[in-house]
This record gives sequence, C-alpha cells and structure tokens, in this order.
Amino acid sequence: MSQSFDIAVIGATGTVGETLVQILEERDFPVANLHLLASSESAGHSVPFRGKNVRVREVDEFDFGKVQLVFFAAGPAVTISFAPRATAAGCTVIDLSGALPVPHVVPEANPEVLASLGKPVQVGSPSAAATALAVVLAPLKGLDILRVNLTACLAVSSQGREAVTELARQTAELLNVRPLEPRFFDRQMAFNLLAQVGKPDALGHVALEKRLVSELRELLAAPLLKISVTCIQAPVFFGDSYSVSLQTAAEVDLAAVNAALETAAGIELVEAGDYPTAVGDAVGQDVVYVGRVRGGVDDPCELNLWLTVDNVRKGAALNAVQLAELLIKDLL
Amino acid sequence: MSQSFDIAVIGATGTVGETLVQILEERDFPVANLHLLASSESAGHSVPFRGKNVRVREVDEFDFGKVQLVFFAAGPAVTISFAPRATAAGCTVIDLSGALPVPHVVPEANPEVLASLGKPVQVGSPSAAATALAVVLAPLKGLDILRVNLTACLAVSSQGREAVTELARQTAELLNVRPLEPRFFDRQMAFNLLAQVGKPDALGHVALEKRLVSELRELLAAPLLKISVTCIQAPVFFGDSYSVSLQTAAEVDLAAVNAALETAAGIELVEAGDYPTAVGDAVGQDVVYVGRVRGGVDDPCELNLWLTVDNVRKGAALNAVQLAELLIKDLL
Repeated sequence: MSQSFDIAVIGATGTVGETLVQILEERDFPVANLHLLASSESAGHSVPFRGKNVRVREVDEFDFGKVQLVFFAAGPAVTISFAPRATAAGCTVIDLSGALPVPHVVPEANPEVLASLGKPVQVGSPSAAATALAVVLAPLKGLDILRVNLTACLAVSSQGREAVTELARQTAELLNVRPLEPRFFDRQMAFNLLAQVGKPDALGHVALEKRLVSELRELLAAPLLKISVTCIQAPVFFGDSYSVSLQTAAEVDLAAVNAALETAAGIELVEAGDYPTAVGDAVGQDVVYVGRVRGGVDDPCELNLWLTVDNVRKGAALNAVQLAELLIKDLL
Repeated sequence: MSQSFDIAVIGATGTVGETLVQILEERDFPVANLHLLASSESAGHSVPFRGKNVRVREVDEFDFGKVQLVFFAAGPAVTISFAPRATAAGCTVIDLSGALPVPHVVPEANPEVLASLGKPVQVGSPSAAATALAVVLAPLKGLDILRVNLTACLAVSSQGREAVTELARQTAELLNVRPLEPRFFDRQMAFNLLAQVGKPDALGHVALEKRLVSELRELLAAPLLKISVTCIQAPVFFGDSYSVSLQTAAEVDLAAVNAALETAAGIELVEAGDYPTAVGDAVGQDVVYVGRVRGGVDDPCELNLWLTVDNVRKGAALNAVQLAELLIKDLL
C-alpha cells in the first residue's frame, strides 16, 4: 500500500523554496497535492512541478487544514506568523528559517531526535553551515573534539536572489569600468570579501554566527563544545566553503579520520593533495565535499578540513526533504 | 650632512618590485643611483622613478660592487643564485622572497633584531600574512596568546601579474557566457574559492603555510606559539583578508585590546560595528586595517579579529623599505 501527502511549501518563490519543490520531484516524494505559498509580493508567480506550473498563492489566505506537512522556507517573520496556524491544524512543520524554538535535526548526525518529538511534529532544518559541519563532524565524534574554529565563506545566494543579481551587476560594472553603485550590499561585493553577514549585536556577533554555534552544539549533542566562528560573504554565486580547524583531546589518527569520512553518509572525500571547490564540485550535488584533510603543521592534536557544500540544496532544501522522508515513515 | 645610496632592486618588473620602486620615491629614500634588475625574460622593460623611465637590466650581468643595498623581490630561485654575490660584494641584502635562512624583521614587531645582525647585513622581509599579523599581534603580547587560528584569504596578486590577468579574463568569459578555459589557475578562479595555494607536501601543508608559521613565531619571539593556518585563494585582485581567532591564557579585556590597537603603529582600527575590506580600505594604504574586534560567542578567553592589508604594498614592498630606512640610520 502506498500513501501520499498533501504538502505546503511557504516561501516557494525563494531560492531554497524553489529548490525544495524540485527535490520533492527528483526524489519521488509521495506528494498528493502541492500547495505553494508566499507573501503577497511573491504570490502570482508559478513554479514547475511534475511537468506543470503550480501557481504560488498568498499564505495569508491559506487553510492549513488542507495539508499534513508544511515546509517553512521563507524568512523568520513569516514562520513566526503562520507556524502556529499550521500546528493548530495538526500539520507536521519543518522549519528552515531558524525562527522556531524547536529541535534541529540533520539525518546524518542526530536522526534519533525525530523519534522523541511530540505530535504534531515541529522540527528545524538548521543553517547551511551547521548542516554541513554536522554531516562531517558526526562521524568524527570519536576524536574527542575540544574546539571548532571556523571561517565560513558564504555564497551570496545565502542572502537570496537579489544578492545574486547584485554580484553579477557589480562585476559587470567594474569590468566595464563604470562607476560602482552598491544597492543590495552596502559596499563593493565584486572582487572583495565582506567580513560581516548581517547586523552585529553590541558584542560584535551577528545572528547567523550565534545560530551556528547553538545549532552545531545541538546537532552534535555537545552542549559545551567550544566553537569560534566568523561568517564572511564571498563573491561566489552558489556554494559555501568552510575552513575548519579542530582541536582534539588526543593525537589525531589521520588514517582513521580518512576512513571514517570515506564511509560516512552524505560526504564525498576528495583525494589527498586535491581539494573541492564550491563551483566545480559542490553546486548541484547532494553531499558535502571534504578535502585538505591534514593535521597541524606541528600540533598532533589538530585536524584541518576544507568543506564545500551547495548552500541552497544540501545545506537547506535537501536536508528538509530528508527530514520529511524520515517523518513520513511513521505514517506510511 | 646627507648621504645617499646606490641601490639595486632585483625583480623590478614584478608587482612587488615595481611598488617598491614607487615607495622609494614616495618616501624620499636617499637614492643616489637606482639599478633595476630582473631575469632575462623581463629585462628590457622600463619602470618609472623620479620622472624618468629606468631600464630594467639582466641580473646575470650585474656588478654588485656598484651598490650598497640590494632588495631581492624576485622568486626564491633568483635570490638563492644572486644573494651570495651581493653579500660577497659587501652589500646590505633585504630578501622579500623567503629564500634565505636569515632573520626576519617587521619594524612594528621586532625592530631590535636589526641591531644584532652581523655585517654585511642580510635580513628577510616576511610574507604578507606574517607581516600583517605581526603588526597587529605585537601590541597584543600582554594577552598571553596560546594559539592563533588563521584563515588567510589571499588576493590573486600574491601570485603575480599573470594571476591578476587570469581572474579578469575568467570573469569576463563567464559574464559573457563563453566557455571557461583556465590557464594560470588549474580551475575556475572567478566566483570561486581555491583551498590550496601552491603544491602540498606529503602531509598536506603548502610552503606558504609553513613559512607563515615559522615567520610569525620568529617575529613575535614566541617559538612555541601554536598556529593553525589555511591559506586560500580568493577572487580578489588586490588586498588580503585574514580571519583570525586567538586563544588566550586569561580572559580577554576587550577595552584594553581596543586601546592597544588604537595607539599601535601601522594599524588602522575600524570602529565597532563596521569592518574593513580589502578593496574599500586596505588597497593603496600603508597600514593594516583591523575590525570585528570581539570575544568568543561565550568563551571569555577568545579574541576574534578581521584584518585587511594591501598584500603588495604594506604586506611586502613597504615593509622592505621600512627595514632599509632603519638600516641606513647606522650609515648616515
């Protein structure tokens, strides 16, 4: 017997929402009726699904009683407004916005959490950086990691479509020796690196960095793990890159690390001497790429890694669909 | 009484060599005769100095007896071949290539080393990253730094003029939807980040990373300092950016850190909440820019910094000229 589900995707016109719909189709997710929703500005567009164009409707007017499963792929404000209505209607809610105070799950890291959730289920799909790091660090738990030092180089697509357009426009202006007029970013993004993604609090931390620390500790079930993080904006359209340096309690056995990464789910380990890049490897793929696996220059309790991931796909939309696949197993 | 010096610049046609000549002029360095030298491929070009075009000659045929001071701003092989001849002729040698096993000095960090050098002097001007980090960390010595975690995002100009041309060419091809043909880099550099700058050794470390660790320990007179470093290549023409996370033995006093950085030589501290960028701030400037000065998200023994520096100017050519200015004080 096969069962299928009525599903709503909120934020269906965004980069993540559109990719999510595409992944539902690619993975043959058992969708009966698909409802695509967005705020009033974006409603009226269409998104392709199974050979048809599905019209995007206003979320304000939606009756959540029509669906069993809702993906929140819009901004935090939309999630906060509408998630209570979805839950009141008995829907399973998967939040990609980080807005809800719910458990976060990455199937490769802490799938056991799903079984402990009350009904109706509310579960969070973490930020791209936390997702990718959890996929890679979960199989390395035997290392006894004391500290994670991370510089996350984010693609502009992590800020949505407008940011992608702005990088292209700025680049073309500079190559054509026209005066640069930043619009979406507050300064030159093309051929430059911006050290701050979002507005910092009084202590200098931005929300994304704090979210990453809290999500990664949760995903690894390591509430005391020390995590130092700087998120920067790179002039890259799609695909995040993470420079990771771990400190461990004992000497790192590199052969064991390589073996663990080689066999773990959701990871593609690049051969020693080579390294993955966002554009050349990760974009469009369903795995986190790992390369430059090496110890410290002279510290045996150090492990360095370079990760690249499709921030929209594996870092967001795919993880949410993977969560849905696990959740519906109970229902099928 | 004023005295002036006969000077040779080896590698005068490179990005660093040309900037070095420009800085000698800008700072009114007491130059009597300037000899510009390069390998046979580059000889024959001219470089402007004090309103004249100075012809670049072949280093092979140069008589080092004609000069008192030599800057080696070419590659390591050229330095290794010709530095012994310069020293044999009694010249003061300033090596920017990293090839000579000589003491390295950054005037803002360890100027006292100059007084201890034997004659004829041989001194090294370190890599851009070590120079910038030494400028910023020297005034923070009171912190009792246990470990430096660094992701260095290098501009393509750190690999010379060909790399700059290649980034522009690749970018134009992509914007014009033409097929990409990497030449200088082995893959797409435009809108991408490359995790490895140079060929790694059997343990996965590249020469630049090992050089940085050794130079920074030397400059800070901290031979046991733990340093974790990843050098990546960013699609930025000029200006390096460094994401730095320090671990300290005691709680970090952020007010004291800000005060120390505010008053230190060679540093421009950007106001809290803002941050510097390579393109907008550092390029063309004689200081290292520092921003995003903040503690850990919840670790009081952590200090995070974002640095940007003109890798060709402050990171290389200017430091070498500053060394020369200190060295000639003895002779004037």
